[in-house]
Amino acid sequence: MIRPPLHGASPVVGIVGAGQLARMTYQAAIALDLRVRLLAEGADEAAAAIGAEVVLGSPRDAADLARFAARCDVITFDHELVDVAALRTIEQAGHLVRPGSGTIAIAQDKARQRAVLGEAGLPVPAFRQVADLADLIGFGREQGWPIVAKAVRGGYDGRAVWPLADEGAAADLWARLDGEERPALLAEAHVPLDRELAVLVARRPSGEIVTYAVVETVQRQGICRELLVPAALPAAVEAEARSLGRRAAAAVGVVGILALELFLVGERLVVNEIAARPHNSGHWTIEGAVASQFEQHLRAVLDWPLGATDLVAPAVVTANLLGGAVGTEPRRLLPGALIDPRVRVHLYGKVARPGRKLGHVTVLADTMESARQSALTAVARLGGAAG
Amino acid sequence: MIRPPLHGASPVVGIVGAGQLARMTYQAAIALDLRVRLLAEGADEAAAAIGAEVVLGSPRDAADLARFAARCDVITFDHELVDVAALRTIEQAGHLVRPGSGTIAIAQDKARQRAVLGEAGLPVPAFRQVADLADLIGFGREQGWPIVAKAVRGGYDGRAVWPLADEGAAADLWARLDGEERPALLAEAHVPLDRELAVLVARRPSGEIVTYAVVETVQRQGICRELLVPAALPAAVEAEARSLGRRAAAAVGVVGILALELFLVGERLVVNEIAARPHNSGHWTIEGAVASQFEQHLRAVLDWPLGATDLVAPAVVTANLLGGAVGTEPRRLLPGALIDPRVRVHLYGKVARPGRKLGHVTVLADTMESARQSALTAVARLGGAAG
Repeated sequence: MIRPPLHGASPVVGIVGAGQLARMTYQAAIALDLRVRLLAEGADEAAAAIGAEVVLGSPRDAADLARFAARCDVITFDHELVDVAALRTIEQAGHLVRPGSGTIAIAQDKARQRAVLGEAGLPVPAFRQVADLADLIGFGREQGWPIVAKAVRGGYDGRAVWPLADEGAAADLWARLDGEERPALLAEAHVPLDRELAVLVARRPSGEIVTYAVVETVQRQGICRELLVPAALPAAVEAEARSLGRRAAAAVGVVGILALELFLVGERLVVNEIAARPHNSGHWTIEGAVASQFEQHLRAVLDWPLGATDLVAPAVVTANLLGGAVGTEPRRLLPGALIDPRVRVHLYGKVARPGRKLGHVTVLADTMESARQSALTAVARLGGAAG
Repeated sequence: MIRPPLHGASPVVGIVGAGQLARMTYQAAIALDLRVRLLAEGADEAAAAIGAEVVLGSPRDAADLARFAARCDVITFDHELVDVAALRTIEQAGHLVRPGSGTIAIAQDKARQRAVLGEAGLPVPAFRQVADLADLIGFGREQGWPIVAKAVRGGYDGRAVWPLADEGAAADLWARLDGEERPALLAEAHVPLDRELAVLVARRPSGEIVTYAVVETVQRQGICRELLVPAALPAAVEAEARSLGRRAAAAVGVVGILALELFLVGERLVVNEIAARPHNSGHWTIEGAVASQFEQHLRAVLDWPLGATDLVAPAVVTANLLGGAVGTEPRRLLPGALIDPRVRVHLYGKVARPGRKLGHVTVLADTMESARQSALTAVARLGGAAG
């Protein structure tokens, strides 16, 4: 059990970051009567606007982090873009940081992720951190083209990921990045994937673990657009994916939610990436599972017993709402989207911009086809980007 | 559709009152990105503490209500103890009040409730508003003893309700109330009930109505302790109860949620009371139905399309958490209650006192027996009052 709360009858959970993940975590905290404090860079961020206590500061500033930690019983994250050395200092001062700095260091570095998960025996693609163009081309020759180059840090939603068809493409990329401050680069074998999957895991400090049903994630232009739950998988593949989730969680020592993204190649699973926090691939759990990923994350970081992960319907679909054309305002379109009585809409309170993640829609149904059609129709009615 | 919001892209819903019903309504409002403003008597009330915008003032003060209405697109309620004349003034000034003053006037007066519902053809018990002891005894002689006396206004949870076995008991009650400012009294025939039921209805201004599954409410000492959903009823009785709910909603012209409490006598239904707002008998809908009563209430008062009311599990049980012995603090006992992974705990953020409604627990299961056992065990683990 957690130490008696410093700050009153209910523990204070500090969240570094104040985006939609923190916002949905705050919603889950209300029912448990937990106090949530946010380290936010602006008072208008998605979670700051709804009433959690806000401390303004930067997750990359050691003094801000230390000041924040002193006012919380445990601190956790809604993103990984945190200064790891500062986190270590906080931990050494005796503050609870969950997941810990060691896990965050792995999660924010794709090369270390590959190394740690590979050493733990998980099926990662062939990879190499490359120092120069010759390295990159050498990797392509060894593995056979095409390959994929990625920034080691900071890329997401298809940003800072470059498929390279041949040596010419590699040389072009290198020249292009030369003009900028070139990021540390990782080269990976191209995986001829059939589908993309994700498995969510929650882990307590003791190592106790639960897993959710495996999700098929449907991507367009490198961005996850739909979650289909359960993914239609042979039982052995479902079991193997959950097992990989548990092994990844243990390998990186996560406390809280871990999302493991996987590629499915035939019936073979290949590890893509991890996130050590509530994740877009788990939004379906708010309505679709007994305990949501957000409540589960809170319970795990407080070292409280974990909740049940069972599905509550035969089929659950979540569709992401990305901002559509300029001037399209999902808030104003909301009544029209609610015409379908089954749709569950979540808007994140963000200013609408084309392509920005503004919300999501979840539908529970007896069949995947029916759930999917309702969810996609609702996103269109909300003015979401097509694609 | 509602008029374009006065106060920005999202409408501002004003709630008169800041207790747990407003708190749970605020939780539902976050997902829809609605702005909620509360008229609260203290900044430490259950809903005020979690971040909704608070206007301090009294629901019985016409100036406070008018000032509040001017800052909201629509105003609604978490209780009925509001000054009806002040509401009328606000309506006449063009503000949207939902439900309207006419509905509130009926909801806060048990004699008017009986009259209006009786005139609409609903099966109400025989009743009479009594002016003196002779009236009360006369009613008992006509109907046969026992009878029930009730305060016309303000009683709930078994308060201000007095079963009277005979003329002596009636005289004793009269003498006892003589010492106080005697409330207006209603006499009712005793109903030899077998079970108590409730049906929740949501109604839009247009008259569009949806109903939820009928609930069996289990009372102890006049206080609702458990909700069993669905109530095990013959199909014809379930349909009749829902029909009575629709007729009651139309008769009182509610906009928003209406809860109709019913007595079951054999297979005959008798109307008990209504509440024109989200209600304790609907807390199961947060996890147990597609759209919760709180979201439904918001949608109805905004004149937005209503959500689906279907159950998401074969059996849903909600058990109320009433404060146990002095010093018992459910917040501190929460981790122990979460040992059962299926329980969904809602704490209202209130200071613990014996008998006070501090929260509730909901469990979804395949069987009623299993759900009920989990819910009652969790309440016991939270230190709730036995009984």
